[in-house]
Amino acid sequence: MKAVHVDLGEKSYNIYIGEKCLADLPRLLTGVSPDSVSLLVSDELVFSLYGEEVLEILHSAGFKVEAAVIKGGEGCKNLTTLDWLYEQMITRGLDRSSTVFTLGGGVVGDLAGFAAASFMRGIGFIQIPTSLLAQVDSSVGGKTGVNLPLGKNLVGAFYQPGLVLADVSLLNTLAEKEYKTGLAEVIKYGVIWDGTFFDFLETNRERIKARDPKYLIHMVQRCCEIKAEIVSQDEKESGLRALLNLGHTFGHAFEALTGYKQFTHGEAVAIGMVCVARLAEKLGTMTAAEAGRVVDLIQNYGLPVHYGNLPADDIVVRMRMDKKSTAGKIKMVLPTGIGSSEVTAGITEEQIKSVLS
Amino acid sequence: MKAVHVDLGEKSYNIYIGEKCLADLPRLLTGVSPDSVSLLVSDELVFSLYGEEVLEILHSAGFKVEAAVIKGGEGCKNLTTLDWLYEQMITRGLDRSSTVFTLGGGVVGDLAGFAAASFMRGIGFIQIPTSLLAQVDSSVGGKTGVNLPLGKNLVGAFYQPGLVLADVSLLNTLAEKEYKTGLAEVIKYGVIWDGTFFDFLETNRERIKARDPKYLIHMVQRCCEIKAEIVSQDEKESGLRALLNLGHTFGHAFEALTGYKQFTHGEAVAIGMVCVARLAEKLGTMTAAEAGRVVDLIQNYGLPVHYGNLPADDIVVRMRMDKKSTAGKIKMVLPTGIGSSEVTAGITEEQIKSVLS
Repeated sequence: MKAVHVDLGEKSYNIYIGEKCLADLPRLLTGVSPDSVSLLVSDELVFSLYGEEVLEILHSAGFKVEAAVIKGGEGCKNLTTLDWLYEQMITRGLDRSSTVFTLGGGVVGDLAGFAAASFMRGIGFIQIPTSLLAQVDSSVGGKTGVNLPLGKNLVGAFYQPGLVLADVSLLNTLAEKEYKTGLAEVIKYGVIWDGTFFDFLETNRERIKARDPKYLIHMVQRCCEIKAEIVSQDEKESGLRALLNLGHTFGHAFEALTGYKQFTHGEAVAIGMVCVARLAEKLGTMTAAEAGRVVDLIQNYGLPVHYGNLPADDIVVRMRMDKKSTAGKIKMVLPTGIGSSEVTAGITEEQIKSVLS
Repeated sequence: MKAVHVDLGEKSYNIYIGEKCLADLPRLLTGVSPDSVSLLVSDELVFSLYGEEVLEILHSAGFKVEAAVIKGGEGCKNLTTLDWLYEQMITRGLDRSSTVFTLGGGVVGDLAGFAAASFMRGIGFIQIPTSLLAQVDSSVGGKTGVNLPLGKNLVGAFYQPGLVLADVSLLNTLAEKEYKTGLAEVIKYGVIWDGTFFDFLETNRERIKARDPKYLIHMVQRCCEIKAEIVSQDEKESGLRALLNLGHTFGHAFEALTGYKQFTHGEAVAIGMVCVARLAEKLGTMTAAEAGRVVDLIQNYGLPVHYGNLPADDIVVRMRMDKKSTAGKIKMVLPTGIGSSEVTAGITEEQIKSVLS
């Protein structure tokens, strides 16, 4: 098992990455009280695959764990499900020394993570991400939250887990579409931070697409290392962390305008990265050849590169509403080559429209 | 104007205490962006008294502030009002650099404070407490949150404001019952921490009951200093901060069992302090004379000393559910004299019942 340390002072924690490593969980749980009731939160699909196994591992080691299973899907990442989860936490007898385990993808992690952050003003929190997106992105860095009818992730907290256990074997049962949505974020790390990792993704495309565990472990580890490095320098997204939003300002607009139905998060981000690569090329921060490599890699991993026929005006209006826009100005991450990037403020609506065609 | 510094590292802030000092607010707002829309949250009663004045002061100084007025009262400190508040924040155009001002008592501060803590994972937060309880207690220390149907303050966050402005002149319009509920917490500070302050409350009872501003300023300042000293040593209530819960484990049970209708929070805490003084006397941590002084002071300020005819069994069951109880054991603060106290774990139900008669 590999370990990536996320350095955040007294909130530091480790991400453990391995193959078939669920059974290692109990020995890692040094901070979890066996006297208090814990809650394992999962969704219907993931729970049907791995729920009983995880419960059995924890029960055998003497932990009192109950399960709360949500339907799953972005549609249930809302205040109504959160309210239901609070009710479960009370009626199952969780107290201030209890822990919430999340077993699932980003929806389960974000929702149950925010429940852990806010229940009794914060209880224990352990993440077992089961999707590629969750293993490389949403389970690292402490962002938790729910959607509101008017926008995604508008309510939440920065709340660091006690540990994250990423077992790449769990990715074997992941639907192809879900696997690809994670790959979009994987590609993002290469573009914004690490040209060598970008090369690795180009060179080993077939192994990665075939989900070879050896390659998956390296890939997940490198993504976690990059995110950990960024997050430990900027926990609350006041500077550097914004780089992680490459493609997301466009992506969120595509998701919102299609009612979160047409594109997965990663697909929307993939198209967003194509847009920013083209924008970077136009603004001269990236060569045409570099922008082309980004677009090619996205396409070669089977991810979409165009948003369809959404009106450019609607996209721009939606981007203005994004929570990364400050005081009315559109701020965005632009690549400055393969493996480096910077935040650029005050991008005009005309410049944005110029790549929307 | 007096200033009390709450020392919490990078989350440090000042509490300003004065008479007729609302007009000083703009010059204190160094961290608030005039470019972003801010939201002033208040309740109907307080807004009708001071809302326009505060808005006028902020608008004149160039701040863009809109108002969101809630009904008020403990009954609206829930997830439904929180949801409404989020909606207001979005439709009024608040962004990540926006600030929430709270103008009101504990309900407004707790509710809107949690909205500020969780909206976009945390935006600016300025407290203008208008009740004595809020000035001496709930606006100091960063506890924010809402109630669930199954219990008070079960959801929330530790979230420190940028500053607190406590204008004692605002207490002139406070109903007698509300003023007294604050006095219960004032007395608590004397009992747990500062015998000299307890003496001050005994000696100057008439001036304090008459709300003499000079005495109010000293009283509010001393309470804030004590709470700041405790909170800065233990922000997240893992140790010392528990002392602030003197009388609260009993008090919460009295409030819950009477549906939060029969007693104000302070009245319930006052009766709770009588119970713990009696318990401390029984367990020998306080002399009968000291316990008598506590009971007398509470009574002399016109606060209740008995919980009526609630069944002792129900009280004990409810106390077990309190979030301060850990792994099934009842933990409680007991005075160890006038001006000192300690947390005592493992108090038995028999001992509790012995003072409930």
